[in-house]
Amino acid sequence: MGEVAARDDIAEMVKRVIDMRSDTVTKPTEAMRAAMASAEVDDDVLGYDPTARRLETEMAKIMGKEAALFVPSGTMGNLVSVLVHCDVRGSEVILGDNSHIHIYENGGISTIGGVHPKTVKNNKDGTMDLDLIEAAIRDPKGELFYPTTRLICLENSHANCGGRCLSVEYTDKVGELAKKHGLKLHIDGARIFNAAMALGVPVDRLVQAADSVSVCLSKGLGAPVGTVIVGSRSFINKAKTLRKTLGGGMRQIGILCAAALVAVQENVKKLEDDHKQAKQLAGGLNQIVGLRVDIDSVETNIVYVDVCKNSNTTALKLCEYLEERGILVMAGNAYRIRLVMHHQISSTDVQYTLSCIQEAVAEAISSEHAGKSQAIN
Amino acid sequence: MGEVAARDDIAEMVKRVIDMRSDTVTKPTEAMRAAMASAEVDDDVLGYDPTARRLETEMAKIMGKEAALFVPSGTMGNLVSVLVHCDVRGSEVILGDNSHIHIYENGGISTIGGVHPKTVKNNKDGTMDLDLIEAAIRDPKGELFYPTTRLICLENSHANCGGRCLSVEYTDKVGELAKKHGLKLHIDGARIFNAAMALGVPVDRLVQAADSVSVCLSKGLGAPVGTVIVGSRSFINKAKTLRKTLGGGMRQIGILCAAALVAVQENVKKLEDDHKQAKQLAGGLNQIVGLRVDIDSVETNIVYVDVCKNSNTTALKLCEYLEERGILVMAGNAYRIRLVMHHQISSTDVQYTLSCIQEAVAEAISSEHAGKSQAIN
Amino acid sequence: MGEVAARDDIAEMVKRVIDMRSDTVTKPTEAMRAAMASAEVDDDVLGYDPTARRLETEMAKIMGKEAALFVPSGTMGNLVSVLVHCDVRGSEVILGDNSHIHIYENGGISTIGGVHPKTVKNNKDGTMDLDLIEAAIRDPKGELFYPTTRLICLENSHANCGGRCLSVEYTDKVGELAKKHGLKLHIDGARIFNAAMALGVPVDRLVQAADSVSVCLSKGLGAPVGTVIVGSRSFINKAKTLRKTLGGGMRQIGILCAAALVAVQENVKKLEDDHKQAKQLAGGLNQIVGLRVDIDSVETNIVYVDVCKNSNTTALKLCEYLEERGILVMAGNAYRIRLVMHHQISSTDVQYTLSCIQEAVAEAISSEHAGKSQAIN
Amino acid sequence: MGEVAARDDIAEMVKRVIDMRSDTVTKPTEAMRAAMASAEVDDDVLGYDPTARRLETEMAKIMGKEAALFVPSGTMGNLVSVLVHCDVRGSEVILGDNSHIHIYENGGISTIGGVHPKTVKNNKDGTMDLDLIEAAIRDPKGELFYPTTRLICLENSHANCGGRCLSVEYTDKVGELAKKHGLKLHIDGARIFNAAMALGVPVDRLVQAADSVSVCLSKGLGAPVGTVIVGSRSFINKAKTLRKTLGGGMRQIGILCAAALVAVQENVKKLEDDHKQAKQLAGGLNQIVGLRVDIDSVETNIVYVDVCKNSNTTALKLCEYLEERGILVMAGNAYRIRLVMHHQISSTDVQYTLSCIQEAVAEAISSEHAGKSQAIN
Repeated sequence: MGEVAARDDIAEMVKRVIDMRSDTVTKPTEAMRAAMASAEVDDDVLGYDPTARRLETEMAKIMGKEAALFVPSGTMGNLVSVLVHCDVRGSEVILGDNSHIHIYENGGISTIGGVHPKTVKNNKDGTMDLDLIEAAIRDPKGELFYPTTRLICLENSHANCGGRCLSVEYTDKVGELAKKHGLKLHIDGARIFNAAMALGVPVDRLVQAADSVSVCLSKGLGAPVGTVIVGSRSFINKAKTLRKTLGGGMRQIGILCAAALVAVQENVKKLEDDHKQAKQLAGGLNQIVGLRVDIDSVETNIVYVDVCKNSNTTALKLCEYLEERGILVMAGNAYRIRLVMHHQISSTDVQYTLSCIQEAVAEAISSEHAGKSQAIN
Repeated sequence: MGEVAARDDIAEMVKRVIDMRSDTVTKPTEAMRAAMASAEVDDDVLGYDPTARRLETEMAKIMGKEAALFVPSGTMGNLVSVLVHCDVRGSEVILGDNSHIHIYENGGISTIGGVHPKTVKNNKDGTMDLDLIEAAIRDPKGELFYPTTRLICLENSHANCGGRCLSVEYTDKVGELAKKHGLKLHIDGARIFNAAMALGVPVDRLVQAADSVSVCLSKGLGAPVGTVIVGSRSFINKAKTLRKTLGGGMRQIGILCAAALVAVQENVKKLEDDHKQAKQLAGGLNQIVGLRVDIDSVETNIVYVDVCKNSNTTALKLCEYLEERGILVMAGNAYRIRLVMHHQISSTDVQYTLSCIQEAVAEAISSEHAGKSQAIN
Repeated sequence: MGEVAARDDIAEMVKRVIDMRSDTVTKPTEAMRAAMASAEVDDDVLGYDPTARRLETEMAKIMGKEAALFVPSGTMGNLVSVLVHCDVRGSEVILGDNSHIHIYENGGISTIGGVHPKTVKNNKDGTMDLDLIEAAIRDPKGELFYPTTRLICLENSHANCGGRCLSVEYTDKVGELAKKHGLKLHIDGARIFNAAMALGVPVDRLVQAADSVSVCLSKGLGAPVGTVIVGSRSFINKAKTLRKTLGGGMRQIGILCAAALVAVQENVKKLEDDHKQAKQLAGGLNQIVGLRVDIDSVETNIVYVDVCKNSNTTALKLCEYLEERGILVMAGNAYRIRLVMHHQISSTDVQYTLSCIQEAVAEAISSEHAGKSQAIN
Repeated sequence: MGEVAARDDIAEMVKRVIDMRSDTVTKPTEAMRAAMASAEVDDDVLGYDPTARRLETEMAKIMGKEAALFVPSGTMGNLVSVLVHCDVRGSEVILGDNSHIHIYENGGISTIGGVHPKTVKNNKDGTMDLDLIEAAIRDPKGELFYPTTRLICLENSHANCGGRCLSVEYTDKVGELAKKHGLKLHIDGARIFNAAMALGVPVDRLVQAADSVSVCLSKGLGAPVGTVIVGSRSFINKAKTLRKTLGGGMRQIGILCAAALVAVQENVKKLEDDHKQAKQLAGGLNQIVGLRVDIDSVETNIVYVDVCKNSNTTALKLCEYLEERGILVMAGNAYRIRLVMHHQISSTDVQYTLSCIQEAVAEAISSEHAGKSQAIN
C-alpha cells in the first residue's frame, strides 16, 4: 500500500507528460530559450550568420574534423553526405540492411540522389561483418554491368539495433577497408555522443576513421532543431552547395544555432544519466513477468521490451494504458515497445513508468485468469 | 555645406549598417524574439508542433487555400511544389527564362527532381506571352519524343524583372490556360505580399488561379527563417512526404514559426512604406547625372539602377564606396546595382544613401575631368 | 587409351570453339540469316516496322498478354518495365538479393530511374519467402519516412541460383500477394521458356499472374539481338515512350525481328535438349574426383560446378586449360565455374568437355602428388 | 497536256511510295542485305563482335577521334554523350533552344540524367551567338545557387533550322570558348556528313574541336539501324558502361554493323545528289504561286516549304493530297511542310512531287475563286 501511495505522489508530481517516444521530443530549456532570444544573427545564405559559424567551428573541433555545416535535419545530413561522396552517376553505397538511412529516410539516396544501395546484413550489435562488406564492394574495372561502390555507411549508436555501439576498433577496421578500396566512410552519428559516452572514448577518436559524420543536435543533446555534418573542408564546401539545392540553406539561422550551442554545453555530460536510467528501466522491466528485455543490448539510451505472447496483452494495449497515465511510448510492432531516455526524463519518471507498466501487465494477466475461470464456469 | 552637415548627422545616427542587398537580411524584431523565447513547441516530425500548426492554418486562410506547410526556404518551397506537381517521370515544366527557379535554384528541379524545364521568354514586366506559353505546352499523345507538360510556373512579384507585379487578370488567364490543358499552376510567391500590396488586391484573390504558392516569410515579412507553401490538402500531404525526403522535416520548429506569426502580423502592412521608399530612392537616383532608373518598373521594393558607361565609375566601385560608408548593396553586373527596401530601412536611410551615391558619382566624374585635363597638359 | 583416341577424333570434329560461357553467344542460323536478308522493314520509330509488329503480335500471343514491345536488350527490358510500374517519384521495388536486376544491371533502376530497391533474401531455389516479401511491403499511409512499394520482381528461371525454376503455384501466390497490396508483379523472364519447358507448363500459364514479363530472345532462343517485354496495352504504350527516352527506339529493326521470329519457331522446342545435356554434363562432372555439382539444382540449361579446394587447381586454371582446347567457360569465382547449354552445343561437345575437364583435374592432382614427393625428397 | 502525260508516265514508274518524310525511312540496299546475311558476329556484350569492332575502328578513323561506339539510336548517342560529359550531379549543359536534343529527345538528359539544360537562342542558321553562349556559362565558384556548366552542344547540320550547316570556323570558335572555360563540346552530328559535304570540308576537320560527336548511320547514310559516337578512349570507355546501364548493349550486333559499313562505303558520296535534288525541289516549289521556300537556307537535304495563308490550302491538306498520289511528306505545322532527300529519292521523284504539288495548289486556288464567285452571285 505504501507503494501505491508513493505512486500517487509521483503522479501528482508529474502532471506533465512523460514522453519516452524518442529523444527528439525534448523541449528547449530556459537557457536555450534565452540564447535564442538574444542570438546574434545574419543572413546565412548570403554570407555567414555569426552564431551558425560559431556552432560549426565548435562542432568541427569537437568531432576532430576540418569543417562543419548546420543542416535542418538528420535526414538531410545523411542525404547530403551520401550524395557528396557519391556525386558521380552510377555510384553504389554499402550500408546496413537495418540502418536508418536504408529504412527510414524515404529511400531518398535513390529516389532523389540516384545512388544504388547495396545492403549488408546488420548483426544484432549494429555491426556488419567485415568480410561481407568487402565482398559487397564492386569495382567495375573492365566489368560493364556493375555500379561503382564509392561509400560505406555505418550507424553509431545503431537505433534499430537498440542503440548498440560500434567500437573504435571496429570503426577503424571499416575505415581501413574503405581506404584500401579507395572508398569513403560516412557515419550516421545521429547519436554518436551516446556511443562515445557509453564506450568511454572521446567522440573525435571514435569517428577518426570517417570521412564524414552526421551528428544530430536535436536528439540526446536536446537542441530544438538541427544536425551538423562534419568532414574535410572540400567535403563541406560541396555539401554547402547541395544543401542549397535541396532547400536547406536558411537565413537568420543563428537563432537555432544558439540553442544548439547551449545544448552541446549542457547536455553531452547528461547522456551518462540517460544511459543509467535506461539500464534502470531495462532491469525493472525484465523483472516483470510477461515482459522480456535483452539487458546486454541496452548500451545507451534506448530500451526495447518484448511483450510475451502469453501475457494477454499487446504492445498497442500497453501504449494506450500508459498514455492514459501521461506516459508516451512507441510500439515497434505488435509485441515490442521502444522507450527512449533523454534529459527531460528523470529517475522518478522511470520509477513511475515501471510501476504503471507492472500494474498494466498484472491487470492483463489477472483478467485473463478471470476470463478463463468464467469460461470454465 | 548645410547638406554635408546633415549627412554627418545622419552618419552619426546610423552607426549601424544599412543593408539593402536584399530583403532577406532583416534581423528579428524584439517581438519576434519574445515570441520565439516563449513559443509552445513539440516534435513536428512525429506529430505536429502546435505553433507550426497555427502558422500553417493562418497562412492557408490568408492565401485562400485548403492547407499549408512550413519549409526551411523558398528554394525548398519551389522544389517541393514543382516535384509534387511533376511526380511522374518524364514531366516538363514551363517557366520564365528569367525566373528565380530557372536561374538561382541550382537547377534542382532537374538535377534532383528529373523535371525538364521548357523556358518561355520573360517580358520586362515579368509576364510571359500567353500564346508563347500555349505554344510551349506539349502533350505527347501519340508522340513518343516529347516529355509531358504538367506545370506552369509564374513568379510574382518577379525579382529579376525588378520586382514587377503580375496582375490578377494575367494570373487568371494563365490559370485558365493551365486548366484548359490539364496543367497545374504554381506561383513562386517569394514576394507575393509585395505584389498584392502594390496592386491593391487581396493576396488570396491574386493567387486564386494557382494550385500552389510558395510564400516567403523571411523576405519582406522579416521572419528569420522560412517559407510556407499552400495548396489543396492532397497537394500538401504529398508535399509533407517530399519535405521529409529532402530533409526539411524539423523537430521543435515552433520556435521559428512563432517568429513568422509575428512577422505576418507586424510587417504585411509595412510593405507599403517599403514601396514608397523604393520610389523615393528611384526618383532620387534618376536625378543623379550618370545614373539611370526605369522609374515605371519600380512597382514594389526593388530598385535597379544603371550606371552610365561614361560616368567614369562602375557598379563595383560604387558598391565599395558605399560599403565604406556603412551601406551594403549588390552589383547585378558591371553597370547595374540592386537596392532592396525592407522594414529595417527608414526614409532617412534612403536619404543618406542617395547623398552618398551622389557624392560618389560626382567624385568619379570630376576625377575623370581632372585626368583628362592632366592628359592634355 | 581408346578414350584418348576418341577425344582426338572429337577434337578434330570440333575445330570450332565450344562456347559454354553463356547462352547469349549463339550465332544466327542459316534460316535466321536468310530471314534477315529478306525481311520486310520500315521506320519503326516513325510508324511501325511490319516485321517488328509481327514479332510483337506473336510474342504477345505466346505469352498470353495484350501487347508486346521489342527492345535492344534484357537490361532495357527490365529497366523499362520497372520504371513504367514505378513511374511516380518515391517508388520502391521488392526484388531478390541475388537477382540479375539487382546485381548485374548497373543499379540502373536507381542510378537512372531513381527507384529504391528493397531486397529480400533469395533462397537457393530462386524463390523469396512469401512472408518476407509481405513484410517488406511498405505503404507509407500516414508515415512520412517510407518510400512506397509499387512492384515485386521475380526471376524465372533464376540465373544466379543456377537456372532454378519458380513454379506456377509460387508465381501465382506472389501474384496474389501483389494484388492484395495493390502492387504490380514483373517477371525477369530472360529464360522463361527454359522454365516453362522444365516445369512442363505452357509459358503463358507460367506468367499469368504477372503484369509484365521481359522475355529474352537472344539467350536460349538464339536470336542475334533482342528482348521482348509483354503486358497490358497501357503498360506497353508507356514502355514505348520510355524506350524512346532511353534511346532504344530503332529504325528498320525488322531485320533483327525477322531473325527473332525464326528463333522462336526453331529453338523453343530445342530447349529440352539443352536441359538434357546440362544434366548429362552435371552428372559427368559430379563423378570427377575434385569437383562437385549440386545435381538437384540443375533444372534447366545452367550448370555450376565447384572445384574442391584440395584439388590443387582453381576455376581460373581450369578455364585456361579448357580454352587451350577450344572450350570457353566462365569462372564464377575462384572455385566455381559456370557452363551454359544452348542449341549450338551438341551432346558430343558435352562429352569432349567432360573428358578435357577430367584430364585437367587428374593432371592437377598428380602434379600435386609429384610436388609433394619432391618436397619430401 | 504534254506535262500531264509525263506525269502519268512518272506515276506509272513510281508505283512504289516516294517517302520524303525523313532520311530515316530508307530501306537496306541489296549490298547491305548481303552483308548482313554473311556478317561475322560474336557476343558484343561479353567480348567484342568483330564486325562491330570493324565499324567502330573505321568510324573513329573517319571522324578523326581515338575511339567509337555503336549505339542503337541517335537519341542514345546524344543521351550517353551528354551524360558522360555531365557525370557529376549538379551539371548544366548549354544547348540551342531549337535543337533536337532539347525538343525531340523526351527531355531525357533531365528526366533520366538529371542534367539541367540552359538554352541559348538558335539563330536561323543553326548557330548560337558566341557572346550569348559565353554569358550562359556558369561557374559556381563561391556561388551556391548555380549549377555548374560542363558542356556545350552544337547540332550540325541543324535539323530544325532546315538542315543549315555550322562552318569549321564557327565550330572551332565554340571549341575555343569551351576550352577557355574548361567545358566539353559535343556535336549532335546526326547529319554531320551532310554538313561536311555541303561545306566541302573533310568531316574530321569539321568536328576537330569537339570532344564527342554522335554520328547517325541510319539517316542520309541509309543503314537500317544505328548511331556511332566518337571521342577519346576514356570518353568511349565511360560511354560503354552507360550504354549498358541504359540497355543499349546488344549481342550479335555485327549484323547491323555490317549494313552500316556498307552504308558508309556506298552512300557518303551520294549525299551530294541529295543536296542537288533538295535545291531542285526548293527552286521548283518557290516558283509555285502560293508557296514560299527560303532558297538560301537549303544547304543540305532538307526543304521546308511555307504554304501562304491566302492559298486556300494547308500543310495537312497538301500532305493528304500527296499521300493519295504515293508521296509521303511531313507537316511541320499548319502552314509548313518538310521534305527530306535521301538516296532512295531520284531526280524523277522530285519532278513528280513538284508536279503533284503544283496541281494541288492550283486546284485549291481555283476552287477558292469558284467559291468566291459563288459567294458573289
